Amino acid sequence: MEVARQLGVGIESLCAGVQTCGKCRVRIEEGKLGREDVTSNLAHASPPSEREKTALKNHDFAPNERLACAATVLGDLAIFIPEPSRTAKQIVRKSATERAIALDPAIRLYYIDVPKPTFADEGLGDSERLTQQLYQRFGLEKLAVDYRVLPDLQRVLREEGWGVTVTVWDDREIIRVQPGFHDKAIGLAVDIGTTTVAAYLCDLSTGEVLATEATMNPQIAYGEDIMSRISYVTEHEQGLAKLNEAVVGALNELAEAATARVGLEPADIAEITLVGNTVMHHLALNIDPGYLGGSPFPICLANPMDIKARDLGLLVNPAANVHVLPVKAGYVGADNMGVVVAEAPHAQDEIMLIIDVGTNGEILLGSRDRLLSASSPTGPAFEGAQITFGMRAAEGAIERVRIDPQTLATRFRAIGRAGWSDAWADPAVGQPPSLDGVGGTPPRARRRRREPEPALARGICGSGIIDAVAEMFRAGVLLPSGAFNPDLDHERLATFNDLPAFVIARADRTAIGRDIVVTIADVRAVQLAKAALYAGTHILMQNLGVTKIDKVVLAGAFGSYIDKQRAMILGMFPDCEPAQVYAVGNAAGDGARIALLNKAKRREIAQVARWIEHIQIPMADEFQQHFMNALSMPHATDPFPHALS
Amino acid sequence: MEVARQLGVGIESLCAGVQTCGKCRVRIEEGKLGREDVTSNLAHASPPSEREKTALKNHDFAPNERLACAATVLGDLAIFIPEPSRTAKQIVRKSATERAIALDPAIRLYYIDVPKPTFADEGLGDSERLTQQLYQRFGLEKLAVDYRVLPDLQRVLREEGWGVTVTVWDDREIIRVQPGFHDKAIGLAVDIGTTTVAAYLCDLSTGEVLATEATMNPQIAYGEDIMSRISYVTEHEQGLAKLNEAVVGALNELAEAATARVGLEPADIAEITLVGNTVMHHLALNIDPGYLGGSPFPICLANPMDIKARDLGLLVNPAANVHVLPVKAGYVGADNMGVVVAEAPHAQDEIMLIIDVGTNGEILLGSRDRLLSASSPTGPAFEGAQITFGMRAAEGAIERVRIDPQTLATRFRAIGRAGWSDAWADPAVGQPPSLDGVGGTPPRARRRRREPEPALARGICGSGIIDAVAEMFRAGVLLPSGAFNPDLDHERLATFNDLPAFVIARADRTAIGRDIVVTIADVRAVQLAKAALYAGTHILMQNLGVTKIDKVVLAGAFGSYIDKQRAMILGMFPDCEPAQVYAVGNAAGDGARIALLNKAKRREIAQVARWIEHIQIPMADEFQQHFMNALSMPHATDPFPHALS
Repeated sequence: MEVARQLGVGIESLCAGVQTCGKCRVRIEEGKLGREDVTSNLAHASPPSEREKTALKNHDFAPNERLACAATVLGDLAIFIPEPSRTAKQIVRKSATERAIALDPAIRLYYIDVPKPTFADEGLGDSERLTQQLYQRFGLEKLAVDYRVLPDLQRVLREEGWGVTVTVWDDREIIRVQPGFHDKAIGLAVDIGTTTVAAYLCDLSTGEVLATEATMNPQIAYGEDIMSRISYVTEHEQGLAKLNEAVVGALNELAEAATARVGLEPADIAEITLVGNTVMHHLALNIDPGYLGGSPFPICLANPMDIKARDLGLLVNPAANVHVLPVKAGYVGADNMGVVVAEAPHAQDEIMLIIDVGTNGEILLGSRDRLLSASSPTGPAFEGAQITFGMRAAEGAIERVRIDPQTLATRFRAIGRAGWSDAWADPAVGQPPSLDGVGGTPPRARRRRREPEPALARGICGSGIIDAVAEMFRAGVLLPSGAFNPDLDHERLATFNDLPAFVIARADRTAIGRDIVVTIADVRAVQLAKAALYAGTHILMQNLGVTKIDKVVLAGAFGSYIDKQRAMILGMFPDCEPAQVYAVGNAAGDGARIALLNKAKRREIAQVARWIEHIQIPMADEFQQHFMNALSMPHATDPFPHALS
Repeated sequence: MEVARQLGVGIESLCAGVQTCGKCRVRIEEGKLGREDVTSNLAHASPPSEREKTALKNHDFAPNERLACAATVLGDLAIFIPEPSRTAKQIVRKSATERAIALDPAIRLYYIDVPKPTFADEGLGDSERLTQQLYQRFGLEKLAVDYRVLPDLQRVLREEGWGVTVTVWDDREIIRVQPGFHDKAIGLAVDIGTTTVAAYLCDLSTGEVLATEATMNPQIAYGEDIMSRISYVTEHEQGLAKLNEAVVGALNELAEAATARVGLEPADIAEITLVGNTVMHHLALNIDPGYLGGSPFPICLANPMDIKARDLGLLVNPAANVHVLPVKAGYVGADNMGVVVAEAPHAQDEIMLIIDVGTNGEILLGSRDRLLSASSPTGPAFEGAQITFGMRAAEGAIERVRIDPQTLATRFRAIGRAGWSDAWADPAVGQPPSLDGVGGTPPRARRRRREPEPALARGICGSGIIDAVAEMFRAGVLLPSGAFNPDLDHERLATFNDLPAFVIARADRTAIGRDIVVTIADVRAVQLAKAALYAGTHILMQNLGVTKIDKVVLAGAFGSYIDKQRAMILGMFPDCEPAQVYAVGNAAGDGARIALLNKAKRREIAQVARWIEHIQIPMADEFQQHFMNALSMPHATDPFPHALS
């Protein structure tokens, strides 16, 4: 341990060298020194004491493994430090920017033997003896003790003979003291979406995701989208309390479910990181989001903040801190900052476009030189709302559509049902499809486990409507302007409420006993949404002075389900190499997880959030022209070589 | 303002120089410059603007008074800064060590106009605009915002056009934001006694005590003294919760009552300081005091601590901090440290003895060179407990006794009844006596207001038993050994449960229909108690290497009621000039109040508490000999020139 320290190599240790924790396992390499066998190598290290032998046995050490804190170097040795023994561990995460995450959590565990009280040190309380010992053994200075640690402290210290594991937050606060030796610290990364709340339970010493849980945001009962929830709060006496309690309740359920999955308890959660759009962020903190509803959309809190879990009503370790990521603007929230943490556009030379499509399209564009943010008023069409047969991405939602350009034969896939609709055996129950969602277990996968197989299609969700309109255009049903092709005659062409429409699902393939169609009004809604998104991106490109985008990142669980090719046909974003378009799944949640595992990333995003330049899209003069041009499919003026190839 | 600053003179300002708060009032002195009239003096100052004139009028300024932030010095001027305008204010407190208290509270108010949000600063939340403004105007760096300030912040900022008064704690945390201009900050100093809980509501900008409230400690329902409460906690499932809730409830009632008295609300309380003996301290913090019941009496928390009021269940401003004073040892508590704050033995050359008599006698002895503490096992006799007719210092308790040495005629005074018993007209109701309690309104005075006049005596309280035994000795009823004088024959000599006894109150003067007597067992209990106290003091004197004490301070509400002369006759403490014996009333509460008004005093007592040397009295070998010698009245071997003079 001493030698490693001199060489600048960090070796883990929880017990501060008293030969109990087994964390400082090192391997004495064979052969490298030109000697014959293990024994001769070991001869260059001190023989293990009885105490060390006990630890070696308890922790299943191989014959050539030793405790770095116990073995003394007596001669030349080649030592290998296994990954788990290194203080600088890395976990690798697959994403658009494939990158290793350095593990440096704010939560650290320390095992110490606290000296028993005597008359000689009567002036010290048990808590002072504890902090004094942590200072003497680990150099932890000026440690605060969270109040909630005190009531139980004296009992805990005595329960296993004064040996305790201390959970320290950010090298400055004791948030938990447990009797005896423990080496597992866990944290929860939370992404509060308007529709779905997702939680990732992480092992803070390995970075491993122990459990992923997701649930519907129960605030949906008070409004499907952000604006309707703001209205609910402003129009109802106890509106804020209801919405706050709903989401806090959901978080508590997720914490309960995730910890139960690995045999732990919510009280074991030592820290939480939290992202969400600005309205979800405010509601989770019990802050009235009403002001966000009106220009200039003033937010209450932009900076990151550490708030005690108990102050938020979260039933985890009461002394745990909840690290809330920064918010950039009224419609560029902590979720977007989470995406920035995960995709790190500010650390790259290439121009990256990040689109998080929800009720509003949130756009980030730039590189290490400059990074712009904006939100574009796409409306809720991409979420399946305000579409004739629109629905949320839930059981029975049509999420994929294919139209044969020759015959206009149309088939679809629905969430929760295996295979394409033309292969369904009615009313047979197929196998659950293996949807390859990126990043965590998507909520729809979970729901599938709990409910019986759905019969048939019930509506069209966001990715389905994008597919449908793109395919209708590609098959010539629609003209580039979005109008129905007047020269076409086909049995799938119909009218619905006097509007021209195209039948996606025949009544015999639906659970609603009637055809599911896409009307001209739906096509217009999609055109408006994609034009808004496209025009917003264009304004950011002009601001940045670029004409080409190197990478496109589609963030959000929704992004994972979008068919990249069809999104390009539609013209949702400027032309780009298809290989450079990535659906990164819940990147906001990934950002929360990275912030949970690495405290330096928190400082980084706090600074980056301030450095990002936010552009007010609807205020820009050029918007209207770009918007009009972008209404066509794919676009009236911009080339789309990759979309139609 | 600028000139004063250059000269190193602090002038108050809440509005940071925008000419509204009127706090920086200064007077342009007449005549001192040899000029004829006010007008010519004013000519050496800039004429007031319309804005300043408005402020001068609003705040009732005299013609020669100006706002320091507005008036410019144009020529020689003699300026007087009235006391309320000075940042370094002093309030004077009468006590044993008569001393001025510098006013330097942790709570400060700042009035600012927060800039409205615009699209240009969309990256800033309202809370960031607030902290930025406090930095720019007052140089307050790195201000934290307590979470509980956030939910209401946006509404508050807009309520009076973005002008707000911000309450800042310790130059580091915003704990309250109020719409518009406010200049009154209040705090509560609390002393939790085993029997009585006292609260002092203070104006933090003047130091004035706005209201004093006291109530019986409702924990009494679970045990009269400290040991019985510890037993209750250890023996009952919900014992700790019950005792904690009881005292928290009492504190909430006191906060409610005290603020109501001056037309304010508990939510206006911006800070609390808290003292109490170690068991009361632990119970208030919801810490199991069970460990304090056994050797070596380990405390949980010795250091001072700032705890959020909401974490303790206190219904004041939820973001307010509760500053808990340090504890020295299991039986030398935060109340004793409060006494040290108030009497400051560590700042004096003379040797001071401080005795806080309760269930245990807590003793402090020393000076600036060295200060020792101890607790002596006096037992509860001085509290009236374990005395045949003993009772708490409540209605009907005999608190003074006089015996004529010639005739043995005996008279007494009882709490709540005017005059000596021999002047009572039965069963007439007299006038309430004007008891001259020192320091605050004593609880018995409050109780008197609420209940009807008592009929007669009901028992003997602590000061009464001291008086009785001292007088019995002085009158020759008792021998120096404590035995009844066998040569004496008098109608007041009686037997009670076969024990020799002396009648203090005849049945016709009591409410219990029988004589109230002092038995030989009672005399022994008092002897044991005073001997323990005396022996403890003696051991501290030996440790300190002194043979003489310069000052004796009797602390605790009880101390105020002790007859100093009779306490010396009894030999409760070593001989001392009677003029140098002070009853300082609730010095612990005074200490809490001083800590509330001056944050430097908190740092000071934190250090002093560690520096004090605690001596374990029952461990000392010499104790038994001193104890035996001290059993006699006044003392077998020590001279008591002042006691018997």
